[in-house]
Amino acid sequence: MPESRFLSAVKEVPATDLMKVALGEAEADLAIVNGDVVNVYTGEVLAGNTVLIKGNKVAYLGQNTRGSIGSSTRVIDATGKTVVPGFIDGHTHIDWFIPPDELIRYAMKGGTTTIITEIPGIAFPLGYRGVVEFIRAVRNQPIKTFVTAPAMVTMSPVSREHALTVDEVRKLLRRPEVIALGESYWVPVVKGDQRIMRLINEAKKAGKKIDGHGAGAKDNKLQAYAALGVTSCHESTTAEEVLERLRLGMHVFIREGEIRGELAEIARIKDEKIDFRLMALATDGPGPWQLLNNGYMDFIVQKAIDLGFNPVLAIQMASLNTAQRFGLDDFIGGIAPGKYADILVIPDLTTIRAEYVISNGEVVARNGQLTIEPRNHTFPKWMLHSVHLPRDFAADDFTVRVDSDCRQVRARVMDMVTDLLSRESIVELVVSNGEVLPDSSRDIIKVAAIERSYQSGKSFVGFIRGLGLKSGAIATTTAWDTSDLLVVGADGEDMALAVNRIRELSGGVVVCAGGKVLAEIALPIGGLFCLDPMATIVEKLNRIQRAAADLGCISPDIRLTVSVLSTAAIPFLRICEAGMVDLKTNQLVGLMVD
Amino acid sequence: MPESRFLSAVKEVPATDLMKVALGEAEADLAIVNGDVVNVYTGEVLAGNTVLIKGNKVAYLGQNTRGSIGSSTRVIDATGKTVVPGFIDGHTHIDWFIPPDELIRYAMKGGTTTIITEIPGIAFPLGYRGVVEFIRAVRNQPIKTFVTAPAMVTMSPVSREHALTVDEVRKLLRRPEVIALGESYWVPVVKGDQRIMRLINEAKKAGKKIDGHGAGAKDNKLQAYAALGVTSCHESTTAEEVLERLRLGMHVFIREGEIRGELAEIARIKDEKIDFRLMALATDGPGPWQLLNNGYMDFIVQKAIDLGFNPVLAIQMASLNTAQRFGLDDFIGGIAPGKYADILVIPDLTTIRAEYVISNGEVVARNGQLTIEPRNHTFPKWMLHSVHLPRDFAADDFTVRVDSDCRQVRARVMDMVTDLLSRESIVELVVSNGEVLPDSSRDIIKVAAIERSYQSGKSFVGFIRGLGLKSGAIATTTAWDTSDLLVVGADGEDMALAVNRIRELSGGVVVCAGGKVLAEIALPIGGLFCLDPMATIVEKLNRIQRAAADLGCISPDIRLTVSVLSTAAIPFLRICEAGMVDLKTNQLVGLMVD
Repeated sequence: MPESRFLSAVKEVPATDLMKVALGEAEADLAIVNGDVVNVYTGEVLAGNTVLIKGNKVAYLGQNTRGSIGSSTRVIDATGKTVVPGFIDGHTHIDWFIPPDELIRYAMKGGTTTIITEIPGIAFPLGYRGVVEFIRAVRNQPIKTFVTAPAMVTMSPVSREHALTVDEVRKLLRRPEVIALGESYWVPVVKGDQRIMRLINEAKKAGKKIDGHGAGAKDNKLQAYAALGVTSCHESTTAEEVLERLRLGMHVFIREGEIRGELAEIARIKDEKIDFRLMALATDGPGPWQLLNNGYMDFIVQKAIDLGFNPVLAIQMASLNTAQRFGLDDFIGGIAPGKYADILVIPDLTTIRAEYVISNGEVVARNGQLTIEPRNHTFPKWMLHSVHLPRDFAADDFTVRVDSDCRQVRARVMDMVTDLLSRESIVELVVSNGEVLPDSSRDIIKVAAIERSYQSGKSFVGFIRGLGLKSGAIATTTAWDTSDLLVVGADGEDMALAVNRIRELSGGVVVCAGGKVLAEIALPIGGLFCLDPMATIVEKLNRIQRAAADLGCISPDIRLTVSVLSTAAIPFLRICEAGMVDLKTNQLVGLMVD
Repeated sequence: MPESRFLSAVKEVPATDLMKVALGEAEADLAIVNGDVVNVYTGEVLAGNTVLIKGNKVAYLGQNTRGSIGSSTRVIDATGKTVVPGFIDGHTHIDWFIPPDELIRYAMKGGTTTIITEIPGIAFPLGYRGVVEFIRAVRNQPIKTFVTAPAMVTMSPVSREHALTVDEVRKLLRRPEVIALGESYWVPVVKGDQRIMRLINEAKKAGKKIDGHGAGAKDNKLQAYAALGVTSCHESTTAEEVLERLRLGMHVFIREGEIRGELAEIARIKDEKIDFRLMALATDGPGPWQLLNNGYMDFIVQKAIDLGFNPVLAIQMASLNTAQRFGLDDFIGGIAPGKYADILVIPDLTTIRAEYVISNGEVVARNGQLTIEPRNHTFPKWMLHSVHLPRDFAADDFTVRVDSDCRQVRARVMDMVTDLLSRESIVELVVSNGEVLPDSSRDIIKVAAIERSYQSGKSFVGFIRGLGLKSGAIATTTAWDTSDLLVVGADGEDMALAVNRIRELSGGVVVCAGGKVLAEIALPIGGLFCLDPMATIVEKLNRIQRAAADLGCISPDIRLTVSVLSTAAIPFLRICEAGMVDLKTNQLVGLMVD
């Protein structure tokens, strides 16, 4: 892993300058004095140690600092404090809702100094140049962000047609900031999806890691997935699943984020007398509420400790273990000479609250307040205009018609089992003048997917059960794994209004009812994220959630529930602009059943 | 780390074939059935597990083998046996005495399936093309060999002039087989040697590891070394030194080989309650005796177990820990689907004796007998003619003269403190007719270094004390860290004879006395190694050792004692064609003292 991947706005300290500080022949720029240092390499806590920093790196860790602390040295007295490496989020998605600089701001506050993120969100609507622009947005920031090359498993024919080509993925994999091939859901992979096979091969050729997504896979199927060279998974929901993966040499990220939090369930693995070096922590998307109210990796490490994990192990799972997984351990993941100075000072070993956050040798936050600001990235205009609907929509666009003059049909509906999982159910629906009617009394409303990026104009309208929505409509451009706009609604007029409002906003989430927009958030960048501050985002999302709840919606997070209707990652029945897809067979299935 | 680095004569199994075997849709080529598998990832021993192998890789590890063991599957019943990953020697030197294919033979027998070797030996006399040819010799063999790019720290001006250029090292670092920048002795590095600084920089740019050699370094100096990006050390002699390095995030190889064996001394570290993931085992040169009589990494793992290391940890230290150090853990170092099938079947967890050795999916040895042979490499003629002395030598070439007409001089002598370590001592020597005389009664004899590769004709003659040699001479072309020929002798005629005999042999070790050659081994390839089988090498070396002992020599391994006289790695006074060098200052020092 070449060091050039860390090229950033921060000037690289000459190695000989580090050496001089270590030798006591030059003064350190920063000294964290007399702390109890968590040594993630040995698993020890070393009392009364001083960390000397020159430029962006650590020069020395120990007690013999003669000659290297002087008038030009900023001294942080860490007496009685604990000093730990900056945290790494080993698997996340930061390309939705929150602008990158705002997310980085929240990472910095709490001591997350490296982020490894998926970016399929940006890749679906904006393609290769969107991905490259996103990389530009997260480079040269006070903390480090690496991305994975989007594998883009999708059920959508339009998205498949416009997905990154193998050549484009190859080009991405050659970039230093692209650290791995991103998650490929295991089912299509194990079915032998040719495109993914080629991408995996490219990742191997480029010497990059291959991240996995083995939700529910076990034994032979999980091993088939691993045999392809997939070396991580962040989808374990139980200690047993974690153990099975570790035994296969897979790196396991225990997830605790806005979509799912499995740490509490998995925590009992702590009592196993095994080697945990392949186990780490990740958010899989921290989410605006979590960031605003709880924190980022600091919150998760604290939670792990509160759940009974050995504190040093909890810290290793957010530092060295992740660094090793990505081959970054020569550079980050621990406090030692020659490594980047990404360091936190916390009150004590079991209180993960950063009094100082040092990133690249610089104090970037104190007691939760930033001392420097992330760079604001100006996104190019074309990224602000990613919603390309050929025309305004009308209620009639959401009418489902049948040719026959029957009075009733049997229809396949997306039947929500939880706020995320769905199954296929067959229901009888009344037909009136050739129009198949939803039935709010049975909680059956409309759902539509409209391709919104490539001017294809393709759309599909079907039925969904179990959302609780009694009236109005909710639409979003934050659809997972497609470039579709998704809309659910009890009323065709409101569905059209929501879609048209999104068209005006160039992307976002909109809740309408009675011909009015009740709540909305504009997400102009790729239809994925905004440029608002975190508190505003949370406020707008809260309004959206309240409005949806007022309309009867039972989902605890309606923007998420709607967004995932198009994902190939969550079983079983999903939707795209071409129709409904049964993930068990990965085939499009008809709306009407004979 | 791109997979292409493993390109070998073995055909790479398509990943989809592995997948089919894992799924039970195709038959494995090889099944190791029902063994107790050591899982180095979790540190567990998993009873009754089956390993399925397709081509050169593992497809499955577990108990559900339905459909994948059939008539085309070779089955090894491992019931009651233990199954462990093939061993890795993480730091060694295989470019002296033993031909590569013969060394590989002995590695294969005992289950060493990957070798990571330094090759400065070949680089000093033969330069870049010698290095490339050596890489060709070890490629496409039944086991894997990686090399490190020689950093070539030397005291010799001629060797420095002919050392690999920065451009050549850069080219080497781009090769897949070149896994790291090789050891740079810490003293010149920490003194700021500009060439090494540039090489370190090249290694960082190439994303390759930087191996260290921190003998005796501690605290500030050790940290200065680490601060440069040096991330390993194999020179610890005590548990304290190991611990100090581990705490700095350095990968530590505990050494047990022909030069030194520190495992017994260091073994007490096993009782530390720390994370040992950065600690591994290596030989630093296994040596012909050790290979013939004891074995290779199998012997060392056994020794670690016998010394009380947890057997699983001992195995991890010869597999996963080393694989992780070199970023090879996606490919080797453990038994799991998708990894290379480098696997041993041993009787039980504490008996490291390979009943089967599987490398790249093939059974390469059974009960210590090879079942396939390594490839014999034909070295080009120019490698057989690396000894370029301008003329035959005569006794007078080893005369030390002084201009003055004094009767006595004070001379600086290499004073052997052990068979390897030397110090500077000042002694009075008698001058007769302008010739400074050695004094066998005080164990002071002659020592000479003659540049032998680049036709420079340069030579230096001085004095050495403490070898015990009463008569005769011993010469060798296996000088460390120079392209010199080294000769020690109590008699000028015998010194000349030994040198001239080596010239005839095109390299080797020769013992002469009374005008006769008493024992010799020809080392025609680069003056470094022969093409003999191991038993012959041992026999010849035994003869050399006996002959030297008969002449009074007290060194337990005279060929080693003489070879290291020129190294910059072992303190304190050393010799090269330009004179004696004080390693404390790294300066040439005069023979005569005022």
